[in-house]
Amino acid sequence: VPRPDWEQLVEATLLGQHRALARLVTRVENREPGWQEAMKRLYPHTGNSRVIGITGSPGAGKSSLTNRLAAEFAARGHKVGIIAVDPSSPFSGGALLGDRLRMRDVALTENVYIRSMATRGSLGGLCQGARDVSRILDAAGHDLVLVETVGVGQDEIEIVKAADLVAVLCVPGQGDGVQALKAGVMEIADLFVINKADRAGADDVWNDISAMLALADGGDAADTMIFRTDALSGKGVPDLANALQQRLVDLLDKSEHRSMQLRNEIMLIAERELTHRLRQRISTNGQLDQAVEQITSRLSDPYSAAEALIAQLGIMEITDE
Amino acid sequence: VPRPDWEQLVEATLLGQHRALARLVTRVENREPGWQEAMKRLYPHTGNSRVIGITGSPGAGKSSLTNRLAAEFAARGHKVGIIAVDPSSPFSGGALLGDRLRMRDVALTENVYIRSMATRGSLGGLCQGARDVSRILDAAGHDLVLVETVGVGQDEIEIVKAADLVAVLCVPGQGDGVQALKAGVMEIADLFVINKADRAGADDVWNDISAMLALADGGDAADTMIFRTDALSGKGVPDLANALQQRLVDLLDKSEHRSMQLRNEIMLIAERELTHRLRQRISTNGQLDQAVEQITSRLSDPYSAAEALIAQLGIMEITDE
Repeated sequence: VPRPDWEQLVEATLLGQHRALARLVTRVENREPGWQEAMKRLYPHTGNSRVIGITGSPGAGKSSLTNRLAAEFAARGHKVGIIAVDPSSPFSGGALLGDRLRMRDVALTENVYIRSMATRGSLGGLCQGARDVSRILDAAGHDLVLVETVGVGQDEIEIVKAADLVAVLCVPGQGDGVQALKAGVMEIADLFVINKADRAGADDVWNDISAMLALADGGDAADTMIFRTDALSGKGVPDLANALQQRLVDLLDKSEHRSMQLRNEIMLIAERELTHRLRQRISTNGQLDQAVEQITSRLSDPYSAAEALIAQLGIMEITDE
Repeated sequence: VPRPDWEQLVEATLLGQHRALARLVTRVENREPGWQEAMKRLYPHTGNSRVIGITGSPGAGKSSLTNRLAAEFAARGHKVGIIAVDPSSPFSGGALLGDRLRMRDVALTENVYIRSMATRGSLGGLCQGARDVSRILDAAGHDLVLVETVGVGQDEIEIVKAADLVAVLCVPGQGDGVQALKAGVMEIADLFVINKADRAGADDVWNDISAMLALADGGDAADTMIFRTDALSGKGVPDLANALQQRLVDLLDKSEHRSMQLRNEIMLIAERELTHRLRQRISTNGQLDQAVEQITSRLSDPYSAAEALIAQLGIMEITDE
């Protein structure tokens, strides 16, 4: 069987075929030549899905809750895509012991499709990668995309910022975890979920979040913003699903939000392309090695070397005209 | 009092004056015009410090242990700089409730200087920022720099990768936390520290790490790689300090490692500069807004818009000649 070409993959993806979708995502993730044309081909078929970001500290039960929510939405007639972003090694590109990572493409049911992504590769790449996958899922007919990620690093925050809605998971008995999370994600949370809410300490978490919310906006938003679930039993999940759906409806005409996201995305794509061109050129000449030698003997410094690289690459200085 | 110029700040920093050092770091972090020249001026005075990265899950006691270690090294005659990298909001640039963040510049003792950095700003910027601060501390006479960061996101991993040595903190009773950490930091850990080692479950953590180490290299490295401390009482800290010092001595001739770090750094600086030029230009013309309009009406797509940006910015395509 010959390797399918981009056009075949795009056509089959638009028909919602999981196998083609998986291959297309992999090729786009790997930036195989032609990926941009494929994305351009898909683009007119996008714009029909909404993206919900789900984030929280390690061990908060993000995967379980995401899977539960997906099943709930599927039962309500949605076609759901899950993008699971796992922190993993920058070296091996995979976890040492992490079954989840091996499960890169799984169709949970006919209407729930999961894609796992490792946080490997260059800085800033993961966020655009998640956006591309989200868009491919959109073009393949998924009207809801759940993006699940650990909510601590800058990369992860960038990813959830690209969502239409953000749910932040907290869990009783992780006082420090909530502490660490809140600084980074408080402002981007549309709602909070206390998972494992049957555990002792759930009320304390509720009070903590409530106090932070009051501090942030002075009002009393806690009642409409904090939900309790138990992902293992499914308790509280239908109520959470109702709230998310209602908010997505409220969002429909928030075009300002979408414009800002698009602006960010165009910049990110352009920046990655510039970086790519730089790296491509560097790998084929010995300039970098010479620079390192000179810097090591303190005849030069990294700042001058970087300037020389840019100058020599034929990239013109941008002036104000 | 007139605002000191770069040259005055550089001179005073080289003399080890804390106030000048703090101001210089702030200006370099903010990329005020002239920062590159200042760094070039400092560069010949660097190369005398070693950098130890300290990372671990939220709540593992990184700050306490880092402060203890710093005091221990200071008592042994070292001049120690601490760079504390806190995850914080991409929006406000600061934590809502985080006293640590407000403590941006504190001299603990004559020989221990702390600088906190927030994880704000653009992707990839934090890592270079930490490197710049580390270099300024070096030029100011600190022969040991401890970089403390939460070890989950890609950014944080990049930061510790830039260190000469990496210590990973684990803590009993955070099973899931260790699980989440290990994927990202296992390969970059030079040693592991079980903090709060008097707590129940410390042996379980030891066994977990030991098992992972055996799996990774097949040998029995646990005895030389895992340490136990209690940062609050200081127990175990002198032994840990001994081990770190010994490893730094062993590292002295690892020039290959340093070369790789330099290569990475030059690339990062060049990439940031390209991004900076792109953003500078974009902010002064309406091209981006027009593109967003066209994309929203599906007449264009983000990929084509990014290409157009690059083309219009006068940045030449890099060919293989």
